[in-house]
Formats: sequence, C-alpha cells, structure tokens
Amino acid sequence: MESDYARVDEARLHEYTAAILRGVGMDGQGADTVARVLIASDARGIESHGVARLPQYVRLIDAGVLDPAATPEIERESVITALIDARNGMGHVAGDYAMRLAIAKALTHEVGVVSVRNSNHFGIAGYYAMLALEHGLIGLALTNSSPFVAPTGGRQAMVGTNPIAVAVPSGDERPFVLDMATSTVPVGRLEVYARKGLPLMPGWAIDQEGNETLDAAAGRAGALLPLGGTAATGGYKGYGLGVLVDLLTGVLAGGLYGPLIGGLWDATAPSDLGHFFLALDPAAFGPPDAFQARARDLLDRLQAGERAGVPEILVAGEKERRAHDDARAHGVRLYRSVAEALDALGQRLGLGALPARAEGS
Amino acid sequence: MESDYARVDEARLHEYTAAILRGVGMDGQGADTVARVLIASDARGIESHGVARLPQYVRLIDAGVLDPAATPEIERESVITALIDARNGMGHVAGDYAMRLAIAKALTHEVGVVSVRNSNHFGIAGYYAMLALEHGLIGLALTNSSPFVAPTGGRQAMVGTNPIAVAVPSGDERPFVLDMATSTVPVGRLEVYARKGLPLMPGWAIDQEGNETLDAAAGRAGALLPLGGTAATGGYKGYGLGVLVDLLTGVLAGGLYGPLIGGLWDATAPSDLGHFFLALDPAAFGPPDAFQARARDLLDRLQAGERAGVPEILVAGEKERRAHDDARAHGVRLYRSVAEALDALGQRLGLGALPARAEGS
Repeated sequence: MESDYARVDEARLHEYTAAILRGVGMDGQGADTVARVLIASDARGIESHGVARLPQYVRLIDAGVLDPAATPEIERESVITALIDARNGMGHVAGDYAMRLAIAKALTHEVGVVSVRNSNHFGIAGYYAMLALEHGLIGLALTNSSPFVAPTGGRQAMVGTNPIAVAVPSGDERPFVLDMATSTVPVGRLEVYARKGLPLMPGWAIDQEGNETLDAAAGRAGALLPLGGTAATGGYKGYGLGVLVDLLTGVLAGGLYGPLIGGLWDATAPSDLGHFFLALDPAAFGPPDAFQARARDLLDRLQAGERAGVPEILVAGEKERRAHDDARAHGVRLYRSVAEALDALGQRLGLGALPARAEGS
Repeated sequence: MESDYARVDEARLHEYTAAILRGVGMDGQGADTVARVLIASDARGIESHGVARLPQYVRLIDAGVLDPAATPEIERESVITALIDARNGMGHVAGDYAMRLAIAKALTHEVGVVSVRNSNHFGIAGYYAMLALEHGLIGLALTNSSPFVAPTGGRQAMVGTNPIAVAVPSGDERPFVLDMATSTVPVGRLEVYARKGLPLMPGWAIDQEGNETLDAAAGRAGALLPLGGTAATGGYKGYGLGVLVDLLTGVLAGGLYGPLIGGLWDATAPSDLGHFFLALDPAAFGPPDAFQARARDLLDRLQAGERAGVPEILVAGEKERRAHDDARAHGVRLYRSVAEALDALGQRLGLGALPARAEGS
C-alpha cells in the first residue's frame, strides 16, 4: 500500500546516503558511487538491494571486516582483460570501477572482460550491466553470493542466488535489462511470507530434509530451490546457471565460491566475493544503429503479442524503468521502516533528519 | 528400455552418417563435421538432436531451402571478433568453423567472439562450447531457433527454446558442461507425453488460451512455458534468458529473430538462424592450473553435499559424460526406429545396411 511508503527526493536521498557513507569512513567519490547504486535499486523498485541494506553495510564496517576506505587495485591487465583486487572494500566501488574499465576496453578493442576478487556485496547486478548502455555497448555483470540455494538433489544450501544481469541497448530509453537471481525467488521473499503467514508457491524452497515445502518457516530453515524448482520442472537448469556464475566469478578470480562463502552479512570474516564484468561493442558485427533497431523491433513484437488475461506483455527491465520514471517524478519510494532506519543512522552520525518529500507529489 | 534401442559402434555410425551426408551433396569435411556433432549428441544421451534429425536435414536439402555445399564466409573480422555468413549451409559446419575461430582468437588474445548469421539448426549447443575445453578455455555457444515458447503473460509462441551452453575446464575428464534450453522442457517432450497419454508437469506448457495446462495435446496446440513456468514461479526469468539469446544471436548477427523465424524443419524458406560463440582464456586472470583446480574443488564439494533421497548429486554435464563413456564402450544407443530410418536413408542413397553392433556389447 502506498501509505506504507515514504517518498524521498532522489537527489536529497543521494546526498543523505552519501553523507552517511562518508561518516563511516568512505571517501567522497566512493560514497557517491555506493549511494548511486543503492538508490538506483530503490528507484527501480528493487527494495531488497537499496538503502535498506545500509545499516548492514555499516555493521560490517563497524565490525572491521569490510574496509570502507579501500580502493580497487589492478592486479593483472591486458588490452582486453583485467583482474581487480577489491581489497575488501565496498563491492559497489569495485563493481563500478571494474565495469567502467571493461567498457573502456570494449570502446577501443570491441570487448572488455574484467574479473574482481576480494570484494563484498555489490547491490543490484543490473546497475553495472546498464553502465554499458550509455556507450551503446552490451553489458554483462555477474557476482557470487552467500549460499542459500540447494543443488538439485541436495538438501544443503551450497550455491548463492548468484545473479545474471545483461543490458542491451535498443535505440531509445527502453533498453533490455535482464537482472535475475538464479534461484526462483530471493531469500527475502521467504522472510516476508513467513512474517505474513502466507503459503509459498511450488518451486520456491525445500525443508531441511530436502522435500519441497510450501511452509515459509520450513523453507527458511531449509534452502531455496534454483530457478525451475525441482528436477521435474527443470530446476537443474537454474542450479547449473548458479554454478556457472560461481565458476565465472569466485573461481575465475581466485576468491571464495559456493559453500565456502560465509553467511550474508556475516561479521566474522571478509566475504571475498568475486564479480565478472563483460562489455561488448555491437559495432564489431555491423552498423550499431541497425542492431539497435532490430533489438527494438524484437522487443516491440513481443510486447504486441496476444495476451493471456494480463493487461500487457512486458520485456526485461521495462517494469523497473517505469518505476524509475515514477521515482524521478514523485520521489523514491522507501518503506517507512527503511526510511526510519536510515534517519536513525543519519542522526547517529550527526546528520539532520532524512528530508522526506512534501505531501501530494 | 534397453530393448527399445540398437547399439551401433561409434566409428561405424560416424562413417555411415558421413556417407549419407556426402550422398546428399556435402563435401567430405563438412559431412565429417555434421556427423561428429550429431553422433556426439546421441553418444551423450541427447537423442533429440542426434542422427534422428538426419531425415529432416535431408528433407530441407531436397526441398532446396538449405545448401549442403555451402561453406561459411568471414564477412567482418578483427583480432578479437568476427561475423560469419553461413551462406545457408548446415548449421553444424558454420558452428564448428565459428567456434574454432573464436578459440584461435582467444588463444592469442585471451577472448574471441564470433557471430553467425544466415545459418540453420546446428544440433547441440554444448558440442561447440566443449571445443574450447581441449585448449583449456571457457566456451560459450548460443543459438536462436523456431518459436515454441510464449512470453510471460502471452499466449503465442514467439521465442525459440534458445539454448545456452557453457563449458568450463576442471583439470580432468569431468568438465562443467551446461547445455540447457531456456524453456522448461523441449517441444519433443510434449510430443512424447501426448503419444503416451501422460499428464504434463506444472510449468511446462500453456494451452491456446494461455492457461497453464497438464494436457499434452493442449500444450502441443498452445506453447511451451519458459524455464521457471508461470510468472509466480519465476517464468519471466526463463523468458528473459530466451530473449537474451535472441538478442545475442539473430539480432546481433543481422538474421531473423523471435516470431520472424519459421517453423522447425519448415521447408518453405531458409531459416536464417543466428549463433553466438565466445571463448575466454582463464590464464588472463591467473595461473590456469589453479583455476581448474578451484573449479574441480567447487564441483566436488557440490557432489559431496547431503543428498535429498537421491543416489547422488550431479553437476552439469556429468550425466552426459557418463553416457558418452558408455557409448564408447558398448556402442551408441539409437532408438530402433531411428536406426531403421537411418538405414532406410542409407539404402536409398545406395549404401549398405547400417552396421549394427553385435549382441552382447
């Protein structure tokens, strides 16, 4: 419900968030980067990866397991590739740096591939993939993450929800932006359903014995199912995609992977996550305008298809793009509890109150 | 049941298949390539993409919509990328040529990306991805295909089952090989279930009105669901992956895409399919032996996890690898009906009988 939310002006939310981050030891540029990624998430309607996470990042910084002042360092580099040591800093800073490096390489050599190790949670993968769009490039971003997903046939969480994000320009303000976890649902979904006492859907989770469950608490105690659910409905494919992401991130970069990764927001040891970024210039294969026009045409054809009792057919990224337009016009929607936590964090650091949007909007 | 199958020696099956292909107009090298891809599919237990398809390829050649004598041609090339015109030849020939070109580029420049247009059905995508393994590279192969899958919220088949195949070396004979359609099941599954009068599983198909159906005939008349099934179980992710494959293949290469692609084995017009191949050298990011050891370690850890009432936990490609070992030792398993059709095709072309494996194996 709209009344569950506060609306905060995007620019003011950015300034407030960046000030908090500077307050816990980040430099100005790093704080700006993290604020930009977090707020892009909220603005796009992906509340699970936005400023709601800020208190958790701060807890890791306070516990000394994440270095807010770290700057990423190039360990190996060629004209096409690079390996980055994130030096246990904020994942957003490393991700932004690495993706921009991949883009720079692609702009001069058609392809850029940058791998990152020794990193932390970097927010929404889609943010990094989308950085490629303003240069007319195709962008790919992957990260591994804490194990929440059981392998097909297993009953222990051993694989992260390991997202895959790809952005493809389409010649206008409506690019294709796929940003998907390789589990059916995120772990937060089980928490919400448990709190509300709602039954899960099939294909979401298993209990501790490894049986599919519709009980949210049992699922929370068990593990998430990969995209596709059980083996009968193709879950081994989602499992395969999740492992693939681990192979291309932590395994390739020389960081942790799979069950070796600690719990999400575990404050006992550094995360040592791995990321993978790729930028590809479509101009390598033909006139880029014609490519973007074909992309637009495919997306338009899909959206114009016969509908099955829904108001419209969407393509990846369209819902989030509309949410972002709405956030720009009316302020970023934050759950009141999230806005309050942010405000409390800001006040603790000596900032004023979070500047809420005037009524009406 | 084993009695439903004939066993044919791999080398003899290759020679017989290649002879058929030469008989319908392919040169010796092209025929060898196609035979190798088809038989790799059967040997790996993926019967839907093996020699069972040979009569259909021959029908397209007979109808004059596929040119068996065509050789792929490089249209654009840089040190890292290339665009190939398959000249409406066999997809296997173009795929093999393009992937080997991507590998050669990766061996000298760490990454190779090759796009193919004006092509045809190329068999299993995994074959091409796996070519990278013998060089210690990571391989990726994508193709678009005839529309069988409905977009989430739609009721028309507008997207192909567009497979994603990735192979990652692990330092031994057990690489990670993901080769997955982006639909929950292949269209052939519905045909088999319709024939046997079996109910479908949820998440497999919709009827013509766009409602999920467990009736195989209704599903066959309707459309496949993307991996994940309906929206509630994450089907928009599988839909997004399918569209992504179309964007990176037909759209990028300048061929057909989505609903513009004709029906599978449609003999009225060329398919103009697009493929995408990428090879990446892990040595760009660190010592390749250490990378492969980490990959092996991750896969081993997954397979050693606690099981949920199954004999073992597998990783992508392991089941197919074992099938291939069995085929090498005991002959390639072919459905008797497939072996008979192959034999009939061979006899029509003046070859002798298909050399079946002696009893016992």
